[in-house]
Amino acid sequence: MTDRAILRLKPGGDRRLLTGHPWIYSNEIEMTQAAKALEAGCVVTLQRADGKPLGTAFFNPKPLISARLLSRNPSAVIDTAFLRDRLKRALALRDRLIGVPHYRLAHAEADGLPGAVIDRYGDTIVIHAAGAGMERLAEPLAEALDDVVRPRAILMRGDGPAREMEGLPAYSRLLKGEIGGPVPVIEHQARFLADPREGQKTGWFFDQRDNRALVARFAAGRRVLDLYSYMGGFSLQSALAGAQSVLAVDRSDLALRIAAEAAAQNDVADRFSTERAEVFDFLEATATAPAYDVVVADPPAFVKSKKDFNQGARAYRKLARLAAARVAPGGILFIASCSHNMPADEFGRQVARGLNDAHRQGRILFQTFAAPDHPVHPALPESAYLKALTLQLD
Amino acid sequence: MTDRAILRLKPGGDRRLLTGHPWIYSNEIEMTQAAKALEAGCVVTLQRADGKPLGTAFFNPKPLISARLLSRNPSAVIDTAFLRDRLKRALALRDRLIGVPHYRLAHAEADGLPGAVIDRYGDTIVIHAAGAGMERLAEPLAEALDDVVRPRAILMRGDGPAREMEGLPAYSRLLKGEIGGPVPVIEHQARFLADPREGQKTGWFFDQRDNRALVARFAAGRRVLDLYSYMGGFSLQSALAGAQSVLAVDRSDLALRIAAEAAAQNDVADRFSTERAEVFDFLEATATAPAYDVVVADPPAFVKSKKDFNQGARAYRKLARLAAARVAPGGILFIASCSHNMPADEFGRQVARGLNDAHRQGRILFQTFAAPDHPVHPALPESAYLKALTLQLD
Repeated sequence: MTDRAILRLKPGGDRRLLTGHPWIYSNEIEMTQAAKALEAGCVVTLQRADGKPLGTAFFNPKPLISARLLSRNPSAVIDTAFLRDRLKRALALRDRLIGVPHYRLAHAEADGLPGAVIDRYGDTIVIHAAGAGMERLAEPLAEALDDVVRPRAILMRGDGPAREMEGLPAYSRLLKGEIGGPVPVIEHQARFLADPREGQKTGWFFDQRDNRALVARFAAGRRVLDLYSYMGGFSLQSALAGAQSVLAVDRSDLALRIAAEAAAQNDVADRFSTERAEVFDFLEATATAPAYDVVVADPPAFVKSKKDFNQGARAYRKLARLAAARVAPGGILFIASCSHNMPADEFGRQVARGLNDAHRQGRILFQTFAAPDHPVHPALPESAYLKALTLQLD
Repeated sequence: MTDRAILRLKPGGDRRLLTGHPWIYSNEIEMTQAAKALEAGCVVTLQRADGKPLGTAFFNPKPLISARLLSRNPSAVIDTAFLRDRLKRALALRDRLIGVPHYRLAHAEADGLPGAVIDRYGDTIVIHAAGAGMERLAEPLAEALDDVVRPRAILMRGDGPAREMEGLPAYSRLLKGEIGGPVPVIEHQARFLADPREGQKTGWFFDQRDNRALVARFAAGRRVLDLYSYMGGFSLQSALAGAQSVLAVDRSDLALRIAAEAAAQNDVADRFSTERAEVFDFLEATATAPAYDVVVADPPAFVKSKKDFNQGARAYRKLARLAAARVAPGGILFIASCSHNMPADEFGRQVARGLNDAHRQGRILFQTFAAPDHPVHPALPESAYLKALTLQLD
């Protein structure tokens, strides 16, 4: 046993843990003065109210989710060897699932690494630390990554709403090597460029990999409209699958320029064009323009927090209505939501309402989620933030 | 306009219809003596309470779901040409999605053909008529199928709980040609035999096609256990993908014999074996036997009706517990539910509880549904009866 702090739960406070859940809420913990004085992100030994040891966890006295289970072994030592073991397992799964070393290497709780989202771009690693716990483990984590992956560069980024909730400042820190600028990303047969330092999240959205391949199945010989294209993930897969033409629409000039560069690099520039616009404005202005055979709508999260739910739900419904209006008869609509606070069934309801608003009928062909390098902890189904529907419209 | 009966809704009885829903419940209808006297399955013109025409529907005065929308056009003529149009559209989608003429050609409401499930085995067509409406249209439907697909044989089967609810007897009727016995089914690279006359449902379960391919991705060089194997769908795809060994377990000696024949026909008999057993008995008797790298559990519906819910939920939990115990560390568990009355989120909860009961941790890699030749009507998400989880266990 180490001499680390012991965190005792209230009577019955272990009930959730016993069902397989990896979180302990603040009201399940005996919040003594000593507990409150513990440093954010420290590693503790969990004990049941009667003193029975339960496991090893990160602890932070501030947030509602106060402790995150690292191991059901109460004497687990959270060091380089521990992290190496978790990373090895995560790496083996990705190597089995994905043909190229470009993926989400670790996806937080589902890979036994709460608070750590780790993306791999060949020999560049970007860690997105969502809590103080993993931030404190930056050095052993970098060592473990070095042992398992041997990357040339490791960048740790800490930003986003979860950090704000834990009262932590945003930062970006190189743990190994240098990152000179955008790095190549290989996805299926396409090459992209992502910017781990300046891009959204860790620079690229691996979560849509399989959905991009799914959309591409319908693209050969067709006209494709890619709404919220970002750096052209859906656009390029569609163009490479033989689309007659692809139009990428996004509000970010930078994203569209990177997408156009990628189109050139992948030899599909002749069938690829961009339009800088707010998507809702674009759709309203072009409602009666010729239709597309495939329309992709992959917006940013419309429901950022629970209080935005109704407004966000209306936005998905509106997007479904406006996007459906641009789909040719017999064509395909792919529409996604990456809102944590928008359950899949409710998203489906809003899409159905939007189709009805547009007086369009059709059928759901696929209901899909994030690619499998973004696995889901069985006790945290609500962490499956990304959900998508692929429909054929009459 | 035809001289067919008019069915008037109660004030507000059109609300559901206006949201895009294709069903009208008995309490939404003015159930006059004339309406009650209409023949089960007749085609009617729907009218709003104030006389405004709403559409064309099948009507049956007996069941709770009394009318099923055929068209939002109130003067649509439901004849061979109408059915041909719907079938053409359905066929075009399947030809686009699936490389071989073996699929579910039409999936009821989602393909605009309420009450008709139509499976295609090359030049053999099997219609599963779930209501009186489609049964009355047998002749025009056979004509339309003949025009669109030109099959050698068309069989109409009417059985199952939906017919019982509508007070209809089970029957089987050849509308064209002859069916001498089992017919070939091609799925991916495999050839199977299905029995349209004697098999379950229409003889084969096309709905698991994509899930079989998903499981097969994990099978190369591995030991696979296929529980509730039926005629070996998962087994053979796994063997063809290079599994070291596959054991198919089922209670039906006939199904296992057909599976073994298919294994021989596909040249994988040397790696394929069968065991006739009740799956729960088998799992309890072999709990401590060597583990498998991939375990497939595709049981029949444990929740047959809403009143069976709790008992069925416990059965899924138990199955998850016993099946998880047979998965080697790092191995894969595929587990499915085809219960209409078991929502995907509740199924996930039961699986998570079963894993926890087995003291196994892991991650959900894929949450999948039926293959896209079983599309879902956007307003009937609950009709997505088949749901499956693919997990990796530590």
